[in-house]
Amino acid sequence: MTIRVLVSLETRGDFPILDQKTESGAQLVYLDNAATSQKPNQVVDAHMFYYKDYNSNVHRGVHYLSSKATDAYELSRRKVAAFVNATTDREIVFTRNASEAINLVANTWGTKHIKAGDEIILSVLEHHSNIVPWQLLAERTGCVLKFVELTKDTQELDMDQLRSLVNEKTRLITTAHVSNVTGGVAPVKEIIDLARGVGAKVLLDACQSLPHMKVDVQALGADWIVGSSHKMCGPTGIGFLWGRMDVLETMPPWMGGGEMIADVYLEKSTYAEPPSRFEAGTPAIAEAIALGEACDYLTKIGMDRIHDYEIEIGTYLYEKLSAVPGVTIYGPPPARGRASLCAFNVDGIHANDLCTLLDQAGIACRSGHHCTQPLHRYLDVPGSARASLYFYNLPSDVDAFIDALTSTIAFFAEFEE
Amino acid sequence: MTIRVLVSLETRGDFPILDQKTESGAQLVYLDNAATSQKPNQVVDAHMFYYKDYNSNVHRGVHYLSSKATDAYELSRRKVAAFVNATTDREIVFTRNASEAINLVANTWGTKHIKAGDEIILSVLEHHSNIVPWQLLAERTGCVLKFVELTKDTQELDMDQLRSLVNEKTRLITTAHVSNVTGGVAPVKEIIDLARGVGAKVLLDACQSLPHMKVDVQALGADWIVGSSHKMCGPTGIGFLWGRMDVLETMPPWMGGGEMIADVYLEKSTYAEPPSRFEAGTPAIAEAIALGEACDYLTKIGMDRIHDYEIEIGTYLYEKLSAVPGVTIYGPPPARGRASLCAFNVDGIHANDLCTLLDQAGIACRSGHHCTQPLHRYLDVPGSARASLYFYNLPSDVDAFIDALTSTIAFFAEFEE
Repeated sequence: MTIRVLVSLETRGDFPILDQKTESGAQLVYLDNAATSQKPNQVVDAHMFYYKDYNSNVHRGVHYLSSKATDAYELSRRKVAAFVNATTDREIVFTRNASEAINLVANTWGTKHIKAGDEIILSVLEHHSNIVPWQLLAERTGCVLKFVELTKDTQELDMDQLRSLVNEKTRLITTAHVSNVTGGVAPVKEIIDLARGVGAKVLLDACQSLPHMKVDVQALGADWIVGSSHKMCGPTGIGFLWGRMDVLETMPPWMGGGEMIADVYLEKSTYAEPPSRFEAGTPAIAEAIALGEACDYLTKIGMDRIHDYEIEIGTYLYEKLSAVPGVTIYGPPPARGRASLCAFNVDGIHANDLCTLLDQAGIACRSGHHCTQPLHRYLDVPGSARASLYFYNLPSDVDAFIDALTSTIAFFAEFEE
Repeated sequence: MTIRVLVSLETRGDFPILDQKTESGAQLVYLDNAATSQKPNQVVDAHMFYYKDYNSNVHRGVHYLSSKATDAYELSRRKVAAFVNATTDREIVFTRNASEAINLVANTWGTKHIKAGDEIILSVLEHHSNIVPWQLLAERTGCVLKFVELTKDTQELDMDQLRSLVNEKTRLITTAHVSNVTGGVAPVKEIIDLARGVGAKVLLDACQSLPHMKVDVQALGADWIVGSSHKMCGPTGIGFLWGRMDVLETMPPWMGGGEMIADVYLEKSTYAEPPSRFEAGTPAIAEAIALGEACDYLTKIGMDRIHDYEIEIGTYLYEKLSAVPGVTIYGPPPARGRASLCAFNVDGIHANDLCTLLDQAGIACRSGHHCTQPLHRYLDVPGSARASLYFYNLPSDVDAFIDALTSTIAFFAEFEE
């Protein structure tokens, strides 16, 4: 790991938050990146500079600050568009978070096109944000949700089952591009081919792929992807929907308000073209600008370099962790391709207790259902612990985690005796 | 104005953004506060400190940073609750912006309780964000929207007409607490009494009142108010809904995702209690924390002091502006009570041209319809210019504006000769 480790070494200094001790006096080791990433100085500085230098509302002003803010806001839309290789920045809709982006599709395209008996296929590993909006749509419309399960051996999407579920009633297939628990990568091309065969649409939850690999929407060929700013070095308070322009154009408005209208009369209103049509009210201006900066930052490092490094350090994590006695890691092995995270359990120790003890050693892991209750039920465990890496994590972070985990397991073993 | 001017003098240094020259080399005079306020150092610093010191996702982690972020996030909810004197912080729902808050009510309470033939009363002066969501609800349900007009003399809500519109079919009365164009203050008590008489609900758009006066939701007695963070010294990317607990409890979920659920099964889900029920996905954590800091900041100055000062400087603005030949100011005179803003037109000069020239002199005013096309149509003007003040504006800002306006009018007069 001597060459690629440069990615973490060369970026680590941009994240001074990592250089701190926790309450217990231990050095912080941040391994909760799948929940949210840290933000480099460059992003925080761009965010702050907006407020200190040119804060103003956008789009409707002719004055100096307003023009400056509008230019920066719309430049960020172009940056996000370039980051995912959209054909035009008009395909990027800024939302509150990725969840809102999925709800937006369910409430616009879904409400318009889905009727009783239509089928939507998702999987048992989806994040709640990619289950509940479709359940609510099903309640409203009478459509039917079908769930793909996982293969027994590698806990990946069961593509044989998916093939058997797709039929002429299928209107949508939606799944996580990368799972936040199993780390598995969905076979997007096959899924899209299956969907196209019956004229169905495809929505990818790209929250766990966008921060970690090059996502090229034109190459992928889906109809929509959703992304989460705060997981990709950007701020909280913003996410985005990318949609193919011809698809966005067919979607009716959802929220009403300023920005999304063409003309408002007392009796009725006409609506703006996408993306404005879906951005009611004052947008998250500072957040969009900072997200644009995050795209610049990631692009400068290189998404391929980030991905290569994460494969390397992710494999290191997987191998070290799987060598610890009593540990079960969920999802496929590294050879099948997986994200640089491991959700796991240790025999006889509750994940919450485990993470509480790890926290005493400065290790920030997450425990619980990770917003995937159905997946945990499917795996027949109440929850799991999860260590998730990002490009700024060093191999020594993994070592510290494994050391603390080993000590914690020994502590519990002693306690039980 | 020698005593109260202290409010602007003592706070001005917290807003270094105001101390800059615009592109033309002129000193910036920021009079676009009704579109968005500037943020004091304290708010920007708290916002950035979150990212530099304890950024983490909230609610679902046991580790050090996550606990710290969760505590700060929920403390901010208590701060916002205290700011509006809510009975409990559970009455505060964080949203993307104020528009989303109104759409939330229309899509939850509205969808559940409104049926064909029911009547909703609003006014011709509403911001688009308080018109379009109800138009969309009317399309979905067949309910009827009725619009109160303005009095001929003072351009305030015509309460006689409102009384005549209220009947047993009225389900909701909604209006701006303070208009962003006329500056008029709605007679909330009378409106609520009228609504209560027929069992109707009341929603107040408090975006233009919350930054400028003490808003006490218990004293007001409405069912919901919505607020905009970025207009009250807080960041973009967040707004909030206050709702009476017994009303929030009757509202079904709207967006699905993480945070808003109790239990998710493949077949169906159960939902969290308010406010979580309405906060799907990772919240705007940094933004909520910064908004809490903004509430602290405003409270420390004192909302009554801010209001008193703004009445004073607002009256000064109104009097100086109304003395300029050819100027028409919309809304009631100061003696009737009005916000510290003036939307106006100058005979023979288009508002856009006016504001473009003012910008050359460093004066940041807004021109256009200010998201109130129906009001401008009602006033029979294509748009207006607007100078809007906040507590950090000095009397000298008003003087600079009036000087620049007088010069601009003289310039146009010369040009026409």
